[in-house]
Formats: sequence, C-alpha cells, structure tokens
Amino acid sequence: MEPVVPPHPLSYREQLRSFLREDWGTQDWSTAAVPDRPMRGRILAKSGLVLAGLPMAIEVFRMVDPNLDMRPRVRDGDWMSPGDLALEIEGSSRAILQAERVALNLLQRLSGTATLARAFSDAVAGTRARILDTRKTTPGLKLLEKYAVRCGGAFNHRHTLGDGVLLKENHLAAAGGIRPAVQRVRAGAAPSLLRVEVEVQTLDQLREALDCPDVDGALLDHMDVETLRESVVVREAMGSRAFLEASGNVTLERVRAIAETGVDYISVGALTHSAPAADLSLLMG
Amino acid sequence: MEPVVPPHPLSYREQLRSFLREDWGTQDWSTAAVPDRPMRGRILAKSGLVLAGLPMAIEVFRMVDPNLDMRPRVRDGDWMSPGDLALEIEGSSRAILQAERVALNLLQRLSGTATLARAFSDAVAGTRARILDTRKTTPGLKLLEKYAVRCGGAFNHRHTLGDGVLLKENHLAAAGGIRPAVQRVRAGAAPSLLRVEVEVQTLDQLREALDCPDVDGALLDHMDVETLRESVVVREAMGSRAFLEASGNVTLERVRAIAETGVDYISVGALTHSAPAADLSLLMG
Amino acid sequence: MEPVVPPHPLSYREQLRSFLREDWGTQDWSTAAVPDRPMRGRILAKSGLVLAGLPMAIEVFRMVDPNLDMRPRVRDGDWMSPGDLALEIEGSSRAILQAERVALNLLQRLSGTATLARAFSDAVAGTRARILDTRKTTPGLKLLEKYAVRCGGAFNHRHTLGDGVLLKENHLAAAGGIRPAVQRVRAGAAPSLLRVEVEVQTLDQLREALDCPDVDGALLDHMDVETLRESVVVREAMGSRAFLEASGNVTLERVRAIAETGVDYISVGALTHSAPAADLSLLMG
Amino acid sequence: MEPVVPPHPLSYREQLRSFLREDWGTQDWSTAAVPDRPMRGRILAKSGLVLAGLPMAIEVFRMVDPNLDMRPRVRDGDWMSPGDLALEIEGSSRAILQAERVALNLLQRLSGTATLARAFSDAVAGTRARILDTRKTTPGLKLLEKYAVRCGGAFNHRHTLGDGVLLKENHLAAAGGIRPAVQRVRAGAAPSLLRVEVEVQTLDQLREALDCPDVDGALLDHMDVETLRESVVVREAMGSRAFLEASGNVTLERVRAIAETGVDYISVGALTHSAPAADLSLLMG
Amino acid sequence: MEPVVPPHPLSYREQLRSFLREDWGTQDWSTAAVPDRPMRGRILAKSGLVLAGLPMAIEVFRMVDPNLDMRPRVRDGDWMSPGDLALEIEGSSRAILQAERVALNLLQRLSGTATLARAFSDAVAGTRARILDTRKTTPGLKLLEKYAVRCGGAFNHRHTLGDGVLLKENHLAAAGGIRPAVQRVRAGAAPSLLRVEVEVQTLDQLREALDCPDVDGALLDHMDVETLRESVVVREAMGSRAFLEASGNVTLERVRAIAETGVDYISVGALTHSAPAADLSLLMG
Amino acid sequence: MEPVVPPHPLSYREQLRSFLREDWGTQDWSTAAVPDRPMRGRILAKSGLVLAGLPMAIEVFRMVDPNLDMRPRVRDGDWMSPGDLALEIEGSSRAILQAERVALNLLQRLSGTATLARAFSDAVAGTRARILDTRKTTPGLKLLEKYAVRCGGAFNHRHTLGDGVLLKENHLAAAGGIRPAVQRVRAGAAPSLLRVEVEVQTLDQLREALDCPDVDGALLDHMDVETLRESVVVREAMGSRAFLEASGNVTLERVRAIAETGVDYISVGALTHSAPAADLSLLMG
Repeated sequence: MEPVVPPHPLSYREQLRSFLREDWGTQDWSTAAVPDRPMRGRILAKSGLVLAGLPMAIEVFRMVDPNLDMRPRVRDGDWMSPGDLALEIEGSSRAILQAERVALNLLQRLSGTATLARAFSDAVAGTRARILDTRKTTPGLKLLEKYAVRCGGAFNHRHTLGDGVLLKENHLAAAGGIRPAVQRVRAGAAPSLLRVEVEVQTLDQLREALDCPDVDGALLDHMDVETLRESVVVREAMGSRAFLEASGNVTLERVRAIAETGVDYISVGALTHSAPAADLSLLMG
Repeated sequence: MEPVVPPHPLSYREQLRSFLREDWGTQDWSTAAVPDRPMRGRILAKSGLVLAGLPMAIEVFRMVDPNLDMRPRVRDGDWMSPGDLALEIEGSSRAILQAERVALNLLQRLSGTATLARAFSDAVAGTRARILDTRKTTPGLKLLEKYAVRCGGAFNHRHTLGDGVLLKENHLAAAGGIRPAVQRVRAGAAPSLLRVEVEVQTLDQLREALDCPDVDGALLDHMDVETLRESVVVREAMGSRAFLEASGNVTLERVRAIAETGVDYISVGALTHSAPAADLSLLMG
Repeated sequence: MEPVVPPHPLSYREQLRSFLREDWGTQDWSTAAVPDRPMRGRILAKSGLVLAGLPMAIEVFRMVDPNLDMRPRVRDGDWMSPGDLALEIEGSSRAILQAERVALNLLQRLSGTATLARAFSDAVAGTRARILDTRKTTPGLKLLEKYAVRCGGAFNHRHTLGDGVLLKENHLAAAGGIRPAVQRVRAGAAPSLLRVEVEVQTLDQLREALDCPDVDGALLDHMDVETLRESVVVREAMGSRAFLEASGNVTLERVRAIAETGVDYISVGALTHSAPAADLSLLMG
Repeated sequence: MEPVVPPHPLSYREQLRSFLREDWGTQDWSTAAVPDRPMRGRILAKSGLVLAGLPMAIEVFRMVDPNLDMRPRVRDGDWMSPGDLALEIEGSSRAILQAERVALNLLQRLSGTATLARAFSDAVAGTRARILDTRKTTPGLKLLEKYAVRCGGAFNHRHTLGDGVLLKENHLAAAGGIRPAVQRVRAGAAPSLLRVEVEVQTLDQLREALDCPDVDGALLDHMDVETLRESVVVREAMGSRAFLEASGNVTLERVRAIAETGVDYISVGALTHSAPAADLSLLMG
Repeated sequence: MEPVVPPHPLSYREQLRSFLREDWGTQDWSTAAVPDRPMRGRILAKSGLVLAGLPMAIEVFRMVDPNLDMRPRVRDGDWMSPGDLALEIEGSSRAILQAERVALNLLQRLSGTATLARAFSDAVAGTRARILDTRKTTPGLKLLEKYAVRCGGAFNHRHTLGDGVLLKENHLAAAGGIRPAVQRVRAGAAPSLLRVEVEVQTLDQLREALDCPDVDGALLDHMDVETLRESVVVREAMGSRAFLEASGNVTLERVRAIAETGVDYISVGALTHSAPAADLSLLMG
Repeated sequence: MEPVVPPHPLSYREQLRSFLREDWGTQDWSTAAVPDRPMRGRILAKSGLVLAGLPMAIEVFRMVDPNLDMRPRVRDGDWMSPGDLALEIEGSSRAILQAERVALNLLQRLSGTATLARAFSDAVAGTRARILDTRKTTPGLKLLEKYAVRCGGAFNHRHTLGDGVLLKENHLAAAGGIRPAVQRVRAGAAPSLLRVEVEVQTLDQLREALDCPDVDGALLDHMDVETLRESVVVREAMGSRAFLEASGNVTLERVRAIAETGVDYISVGALTHSAPAADLSLLMG
C-alpha cells in the first residue's frame, strides 16, 4: 500500500509550536531543577492501534531540540500491536521530557481516530461503500484529524464549507425546493470544480434530486436500511450517475448492513468526535 | 451552587475566530446560493449530559453576527435531559448556518468532558477524594477542556509545566533520588507559590518522600487499592500533612474503591482524552 | 440581479488591519500636525467602472473610527460612470485621511478586476460560455480578488489546490497517463465533493480523458479556435457530460470566437494578474 | 551596477508562508495522487522584462522543500529577453509543483512593476529627474513592490505615513495655510530625520511654500508642463534649495517633457497600481 | 498647550491584549474564588510625575470589560502631584482586578519616561536645543515609549532604521569616507523624504560633513562642551543650514551647558532605557 | 554554581523577530547604502554588571544571519567588570549592524535587572531570606525579566495570575474575611499544585491567616521592621509552617534589616520596574 500523503508541515508547524507553548505555560520548573543528560526514549503502543501522527510527533521533538536523533520504526497507517515500537529517540533528557506530552497527546488522539476509521473500513470491506468523515472535527485539528481518517483507510468528505456544496433541509426550504436551490447554486457563486450534493429524507425527495441534471450526489439522511436499499434501486431505475451517501446513526454494528445496500459512501461523525484515545507511551532509560 | 468561572474571553476569542476560519475554508458556497432570511434556531440536548461551553458557543454566534438575538436557557454545569433546550437564537439564517458547526463541535466536546467528569465526581461523592484531570488534553483546547472538567464538578491538576512541580521517575533518577531532587527544586528556579509533588511507586519511596519537609504531596503511581490504603496509613503514621494523589488506570468501576482508601486526589486522563462527544443539535424553523 | 455575496468579514478583517498598519508605519505625522475637525468625504468614480470592494472599504474606515457616518450610494457589481458617487463619509478629518489610501487602494484594485471581468463576460453574452478566473491572483488577496471577479459577472475556478483536482501535464506524466492518474485520484485522497479536471493539449488526449468515467471536465490548453470547436464535437460524439474549459492566451479580441465554439468555460488569468486599477478618488470638503 | 538591496527576509518570510497557505487551502490533492519523483524545473522569461522578486521566489521554494537545489541565472534588476533563464531547480516534483504558483505570481507581479519602472526611468535618462513611486501599492505588498520599483531603476517616495511629512490640501486648509501648517509640523511631533513636503496647485502657493525656511520640497499637483517649467524658474529666482516633485497624470508619453522642465522628482502611481504582470513560466521536464 | 497625539489604537491594541494574556497565564484563580461585585477604583499619583499612557490604560480596562465606567481626570502630558487623581473606574470588581496590573505597569513605565523627558526639557528651556530620544527603547514598546517622550515635551529621533539615514563610523569606513558615503545614499535606495545625518567625532570631520550639499545634519558624538561650542561656530562660518545634534553621556547636570552651546538637538538614551518607573497605584473601595 | 536555566527559545523566538521588525521599520537605508564586508564585533561591558540575556542576544544575531560566527566569552549570571568581553562576532557587517541595537537593548535591560537583583541578594547573604520579584514587569518581557532576576541570584514570585493564589485586601473584603476567602479557594477552582498566600497588614490579621490550615504563606504588607520581627515570633508561637513574605518599600538600605527579622521572602518591585540599564556596547573593527 502506498503511504498516505500528510499535509505539508507548513500547514501545521505553527500550530505545533502553539501546542508546546500551551503545554509549557511559563517554563518547565520540574525539569529545570534536575541535570540535563543524554537519554534514550522509546514510544510504544500499549494497545492495538492504527498509527497516525508520527510525522507531527517527530516535528514536535525536533522543534524542541533539532539535535535529537530519531528513528521511526513504523509509519502512519500501520497496524501496531501492544508493545510494538513506533519511534526511538536519543538525546537531551530535558528536551525529550519537554516534548513528550504534546507529542503523545497528538499521537494518541490521531491514532484513536485512525483506529476507529480502520474498524469501520474493515467492516465494509468487499462492498462498494467507502467510509467518509464529517465536519464534526475537533476545532483546530481538522486538517490533522482528516489525515488520520485517511491513515485508517477511510476517506474525507469536504473539509470546509468552501470545498463542496451540500444543500441541507434549511437551504432547500429557503430556496423553495430542490430544483430551484440547485439552479441557484449553478447559476451562482460556487467555484467550478465543486460537486453539488443534496440532502434528502424520503424517496420522493431523492427522485426530485436525481432528476436535476446538476446534482452530483444525494445525502440520505437517517434512512433505515430498507429505505437505503430502495434508494439505490431508485437511482438505478432513473439511470442516474449521482452518488449516494448514507448518513446518521452509523455504528459499527449497523455499518455492514448499510454498505450492503449499495450506497457509495457512509459518513460517520464518530470517527472524529468520539474516538477514544489510542494508548501509546514514552519509555525512557 | 455557584457558577463555575470560565476563562476570560480574551483568552480564547482569537482561537474561536480561527476555528470559524478553519471550518469555512474560502467561503460558504451552499449558503451563498440561497436567500438570507430571519430564522429561529434552538440548541437541544439529545442525550443526558452536563453542559459545558455555552459562553463559547454564544461568542461564536456573536462573532458571525452581532445582531443575533440569543437567549440561553441553562448554564454551564447544569444537567440536561434529552430534549432540554440550551439556547434559543433568532436572526439571519445565513449567520446561524455558518456558525452552527463550530458552536456545536465545541459544545459537544466540552459537554462530553463535563459529563464524564460528573460521572467520576458522583462516583466518589461522600469521600474526601477529589477527581483531578491531567495534562492529557486536546492540543489547543487545554484551557477550555480544563474549564469543562470544572463544569462537571471535578478539579484541575496543574495546567502546564509552569504551574506546579511534579518530579517523576526520570527527574528523580537524574537528580539521584527523592531528597536531592526536592532540595534542588527548592534551592532553584521554581516560583514561590508552586507546590512540589513527587511520584512514587512503592511505600518505601512514599516514606522517603514524606520525610522531606519540602514535599507538598505524592503521586501514587499505578498502585492497587490495597497499597493505596496502606499509603494513607503511612502518611498518618508519619504525621505528614502532604496530600496523596492516586493515578493510573482509574475507571468508573474502580474509582469508588480508590476514593475510599482515603486519598485526597484521583487523577483521570480519560476526562480529556477519551470522553465521547455529548449529543446536542441545532434545530431551525 | 441579486447582490454578489462577499466573503464574511471574519475572513478578511485581520488583513485589513494589517493593511492599515502597513500604510501607517509608525504614525501619521502629517495629520498629527494639524487640528482634527469634522469633514465630509465623497468617493467618486473618475472613469467608467464596475465597483468592487465597497464593504471592505467601509470596514477600513470603520476600523479607523467607528463613529464615522457612512452612506453607500451604490453596491458592488454596479456600473459607475465618471463622476458617480460611491460613498459619502462624515466625521473626523484625521480618521478619514488615515483610512483614505488603504480604502482607495482596495477599491481601485478590486474594481479594476471587476471591470475587466465584466468586459470579458459581456463579450461572451448569449453563448453558453462562462468566464473563469485562475489561481494567478495577487498573493494575499485571493479571496477578495475572486470576489471581485464575481462582482464583474464572471465565475471562480478553484480557489486553492484544496478545492478541486486539476491534473496537469506533469501529473499525468508522473502517473503514466490520463487513465492511471484519474484512477489514482479517485482511489485516493481527494475529498468526495471535488470534481476532477484533466489538462489536454490534443484531441487524442481529450478522447482519452472523456473515456474515463471519473473525469468531470477537461482543460483545453492553448488550443486554437478550430481545435476548440472540434473538441466540442468530440465530446458530443462520445456522449460525454464532461465540461470543457478553454485556457491560454485569451484576450478580449479572441474571447467571443472561443465562446462560440461551444465550450463551457473560458479561463482568463489577466482578470487578476493584469487588470489596471480603476480610477476612484476621495474628495473632501 | 551594484545590486539593489532587497528587504531582509525576516521582513517578508512570514508573509510568504501565508501566501503558500492561501494558495494551498487544505491540501494539494492533485499532486498527492501521483508519485513524487526527482524533476528539473526552469523558470523562463516569456516576454522582455526587468526581473524582480527572485530572492523571494527562491525563498518560497526553499520553504516548501529545503532540499531543492536552486541555481539562479540572473539577478533582480537584470533585463531578460524572451526565453532567458531565470532559475533552475532540481528536486522533488511534488515540492516544485506546490511552490510553483506562488513563486510565479510573485515574480510576475514584481517584474511587471520593475519593467514599467525601467520604462519610465529610461524615458527620463539624461535629465536630472528621478522617477518616484507612490503609496498606491497593493495592500500587503508595499515593501516588495517598492523594492521592485528600485529594481527597475526608479526611486521610493515615502513608504508609509510615518517616514515623511507631506502636507496636502486638506492639511493646509485645516491649519489655515502653508506657513502655519509647516510651523505646526516643526513645532510638533514629526521625528527629526523627516523632510517636510508641501502640496501646491499654483505658482503663488509654490512661492508661499518656498518662502518657509522649514519646507524641504514641494509637490506640484497636476500642473501642465508649462507651469512646471515656471515652477523651476520660481525656485531659482527665490534661491531656494527645496526639491520639486511633479505629480498627477504622468504617462510614458508625457514623462520626458515633464523631466525636461527641470523638476527633481516625478511620481508615478501606475508603477504599482497598474503594471501588467510580466510573463514568466516554469517548465518542468 | 495642545494635546500630544497618541498612536492610533490599531497600532497597539493587539499588543495590549498580549500583555493581558502574559499577565494572566491560565486564569486568575484568586479572583475566581471570590464573588464579583460593583466596585470603584481610583488611580492616583503617589509621586510627582508627568502622566503618559492614560489612553492605553483605559483601553486595557475596556478590553477586560467594556461595561466599566471610566472617568479620566487629567490627560497625558499633565503634571500630577502626589495624591492627584488620574482615573476613576466603576464596575465589576473582578474586571478591575484583572486589568489593574497591566494598566499600572504601562502607566508607571510610560510616565517614568515622560517625567524624565520633562526634566531634560525643562533643563534646556529658553535655549534653541530640543531634547531627542534614541533607538535605545524597550523591545516591543518603542511606539509607546516614543509617545511618552513627546508627552514629556521632548522630541523623537527616528523611530526605526527605516525613517531616517544616520551614517555612523562603521558606515563611513565601509564607504571610504563621508563624502562617498553620502553620495551613495543619495544615489541609492533611501526614500525621498528622509534626511541624512552623519556622525562625526572631530571638527575636521564636521567640516567635511557640512561641506557635502546632501548632508542634512551632523551627530556630534561624545564631544565636550567646548568642542560642541566650536562646532556651532564652524557651522556658522561655513554658512551651513545643517542641524547639529549632541549625543553621548548627556546627564541632567550637563544638559544645560550643552544646550547653551547652540546645538539644535541633544539626544538622551536614558529617557527610554533608564527612567525609573513613576509611582501610581489603584485604590479600590 | 550551576547555570540558570533560561526559558526555551520557542517561548521567545517569535518575540525576538518582532523586536527586529519593530526596530527596522521598512528597511535599513543607512546600511543599504554602503558595501557589505566581513567584520568583527565585540560586545563589552562598560560598567560593572551581572550579565543576563546572552542566549537571547545570540539568537537575535543568528536570526539576522545564521552564518555569523559567535563566540560567547562569559555566561548569564556572571559578574563582568568594565572592559570585559561578553561576545565576539564575526561576519557580514550589514548583519551585525542590523542586529546590534535590538541585541544590545535586550542585554542592557536584562543585565540591569540581574545586576540589581544581585545587589539585593548580596545584601541579605547569610540570612534565611530570599529576594523575590513581583508582577511589576515590563509588559511583553515578563518571561525574560523573571529569568534575569534568577540570573542575579534572586527568585521568582508567581509569574502570572494563573500560577499562584494571592488573596489581597479586596479579595478578603469581597469574601467576608480571611477564613471564608481561603475556604472558597480550596473549595473552588484553583489547580491542585498552587499555594495560597494571604495579604495581611496587622499582627491580628496574621494570626487569623496562620490559623487557617489551608494558608501556605502570608504577605506582610508595608510593615515596619519591628512588626516584621513580631510576625516571625507570632508564627513561631503558633507552630505554623507557613512562609512569611515582606513586601512594600524595600530599598537596598532597608533590605538587610528586613532580612534579619527572619522572614522567608522579601519581594522587590524595583528589580523589574526601575532597574537602570546596564552599560554594554558593541565595538566593531
């Protein structure tokens, strides 16, 4: 498998610096009190996990001390079993201790998301469905969390309001229905390379949406599995090439059944809003 | 109960602005395509939860449109049952839609932490133990998450490396033991209003720590309930006034038993690293 | 015509502040030397132009003095003849003088782009072709310049590398041809609401592109009018629904002929990289 | 000729970073989809131009990838004929592609200004007159555009309101005439190393200005060539050492005649507000 | 006397915010522990002083709480005797306490500089000499300290390297003497409204400097009073209009004698690098 | 003696950059006018001083030119006699000249504070008393000035409102006395590793404070030496372990007498608000 392409460091480096300053406050008085000396640290998985965030963690250590010697042992997207080694670090004990918490907080959080994304992806393996994330990301961490989603083998829905058009119930109401709303979008401001997706609650709404030539896809909101299946049938019957995205209350238990309806995408907010932290720790010695 | 005092808006306002920009990307093309009109939105709990983040959510809406009329119905720290109303908003549909996601992302996350903090606090009710958070916070959200912890009735450990001295295993090793390490701290740089806490793994180490006049407290690392109980006995026997903090693998199941050992503090990383998002949504109409 | 929706002030307000600081340096010593007094200023067109940037100019004046009384007389997207009044301002002479240059610099530049965009749009009126801008924008002013393009009645191509996929010659070479490149995109990282456009130089490349089910459109690079016309024929013959975008050396002289070939889009870098400033000035008295 | 001294990178480096982020949005999905490989790029002039911005363009590439090998072939201020090579780059294709647009946008814009500045400078060669720029610069790019003006052989008027005193009509009116205005400046706040220039519309005003011992120069506003000539005579007659600056409606056609009147400076807003982009492109292979 | 014109708040408001955040760290735990209630605060002089910084102090209080009612009783530049009232504040006790320290720190420091500037200015009253500050300002506070200097009745030398040309010994050496150095400046990059000042140590150097038509003034470096007096004679003898600035080891004891030599300016680094804080305090009740 | 641990460069590097930009304004026109050439600079003490700020000064030079060769000859905290050499620099004359002023301004100011801190520390040598700083620091320089205090052998009181609880008169009044105020703090929000200090004016108040089990120390406000001595006696009589801090009007003349009363801490605002700049200069050649 090819490695997942992370965002360029210029997109997050300043943020990492602010994370360190947030964690340090004024100064690390505990470490200042004891002598600095060469040490060796190892970051290890303590539970099974899909790693995400290693380039960011390495960047954090490097910011604190460019002379640290770092040897990554795996790469983002890899499965790690408890006890597996992610990164070896050698150098100033003071530097390692000052970077540790921020590096681990990032790794644990991003790996938590990647691990959950992998679980959902594995659950739909063999179907045509792809797992998508949502905009329900941690404020300030969207770019990194969306990267973690990809590390877990799932895919990104739009990142921002600016890179995709999604007409929800309120938009449709304000514009007076699906057709006029879609026409307004295409007559209007949206940049030329954005797709237009329409949220529908019923099969009738779906038919109305698929009937618009400018609709690229439909978000099937909180439909039960049976209705999702009928949605796929409707699309086929209409000869539409629009994509179908199931959304709402998607759990690991339900996701396979949803995928087997033939939808193209299944979006899962929990990937970024409720993934428990993966367990990694830094051992020194 | 008195309201929990939130951080001053000057401490997080710039960040809220950056959260909105992060969520918007270039521009909200979906909303731009439909007419702006007066609307009414209501933020409702969809599961039982302890609310946290309402002042921040209100600030987010106000940033997007200072003319929105907002009526909070509860306050941070309150328990909400499913269906309870947190906030009513009236004004521009476009403004409400552009602020919605960031406001909800904050509320859900902070209320998730507050709700878990409340569960732990309730579990130790009637004992002398207080639940503490840790530095395992989401990078960039420390101040707000620590506030959410307090909304849930738990307490803050140090926020940063700068507002408390905690000598861990590595510090003790580098300094050549507990006593020399503590002496170095007090001889040294740490500001005068900081307490000194020492991490111990065994009762012997605990005894050594409590024997130092300048040790204000001990972190009892991954001790079982029985050893925790003996730690309390040791302290009493030594006539020490130092506080005792239990730490490591604290779950809702174990926390009561830990509290009943007589320790003063129990620190719980999960409050901030693994609380699932609370469920809140914005209804418009 | 409905007004063009500008970006939200949160997206550019900080930048306006930095523009003022850039123009002020340390302090306005000239104005400091003379008494402050109530004055009236009028911003007038001095040449025929399409106005763009009025909300930004008003914001600049308001930043310098929230007590200025401002009465806009037209709105962005309106045509102004020489002598027409754009904005009346009343209040502190010192404030008006300190804001003047930045406000005018913005208005002149954005109106220059809007005016040129209108000229191109008018030139293709009655055809199916839409005028698009490019990423050849002034560093730092992309969002505002893209808005000015819309004020002139033209449309936005992608704003950034993040809101659209455009596979150019180099991408195609690196991936080993159009089909493998497109497959990699769709197998890969690109968010779900982005279209995929492929750059082609020849009709053969165009055929190859349109043959891929996942190609949403083709950029016809530096083709002459005849070849553009044949491109449209090719698309029709293949029953493709992909859009066609003509690009390269598009001048006001050539644009009508290009539009009449039946392409959907014509992209014009000059809209943002070479539009001369429109002439507006502030009269005080 | 000695090389023009560019601003120190600390003065613009942060801005270059923001330009890259502006151009990237979330992430470059097109490039992420294809393999990274070593490539060679060459930046070439496609029209005759005076180069400006090369150190900034190089800095942009270096920010994206410090391992790129870059070999500049000319330097800022040099004349380039179509086809001439400005810069050779070797290294990661992904890095070159991600930096390309911002680097070229800067080069094209700054070289456009330098080229126009050179045209004006050449037009007045052999006279005592120097071409000056104005404060009509692109918001956010003042320092770089003023540098481009110097690369073209012209000179800088004050950069900001803080590095020069220019008393315009409104200042003079508010202070009650030229003499009291100038006295207030020198009695007042302006730093000791700033010159004082006064705007005049008529020869009478000029006489009044030159009669003040503290006036260092006069801006001759929108005077015709004949009046400009008389202004020079007036100065001589009065034995004044003040400089004279012609300003307003200066075109390439008129500038020589203006210069021959004997004025010291001719200021040209178009250098920075209406220079068309110079044509440069990046060839890869 | 007319009020001294302060810098525009846009030039320092962000900085004031950062000062508050610097002083707060995480949160004000002391104040959070006690009830908020309406209070009245009065800022009083506790020693004789020239006030400077009141608009900044008011802005600090307003940032913390826009509802505070503030009544200034004096204005910057006024002399205050011990016990005099500078500002009355009414409103939230919590807000006043959180703003107090930063507001006072600014007031004390800026008033310290203003008070010392007044002492020097008074010492030279009746002579032609003006007291100037230097670039020896507190990093980060240059604009405010230079304003404080003006509040004390002294004047500003250049603020930055960008708003004045001062050729020091090293510049002259590198260029091969005074004349070639000055020629290079005027042939070169310096903006048109900047004066050129040359540092000289001896009367011979002074003669060489005044002999250059483009030298606007001379800095007389560490000369004794006798040599300063001769410098004035030299200037007169040469019929030069250049200004003379005495610099180096200027104390309150020596300054009158220096002023009586007939120099135009006397620059005093101590105004900004060694003024003791003025004594002001906030009384609440 | 072990070296004083400075803050991590990540905590102040951005600030140093802003100091340089503040000092440069647009560009250094004086240096631009003369040729760049290799030079050697030496920073020397010109008065007796305790050095502080050398790592920051070195960082400033390195920012301006990473190729400068720098050889520090002493380290922060060292005593320097007039003429002693602090730092040798070799490299570009232009770089040295552009960095000089900011580097010296920092060194002079921080060494001024360190020198005064040393004077106070020396004055109490042999007593149990430690000299503390206060929050009366220069806005924007708190972290560096507190470091300078430590370089002088004195100690830091809390840095911010967030790293210590200090209940002053107003807090006590609002809470209704010492005991209820202290109870509120411990019941409330303050993080677990902060000490609680209470301000007292009289011996009665001191007794009340020391009677609270949760009071860690008392600030003895403006007490005369006799009362301070009695305070120590009171503490002993009560068997309290709380620390005692004398504060208010502490001069070099009085400090020894205060120290001999037996208090633990003596806080001195003048260390940071009124230390005259130490005299250092850069010699080039």
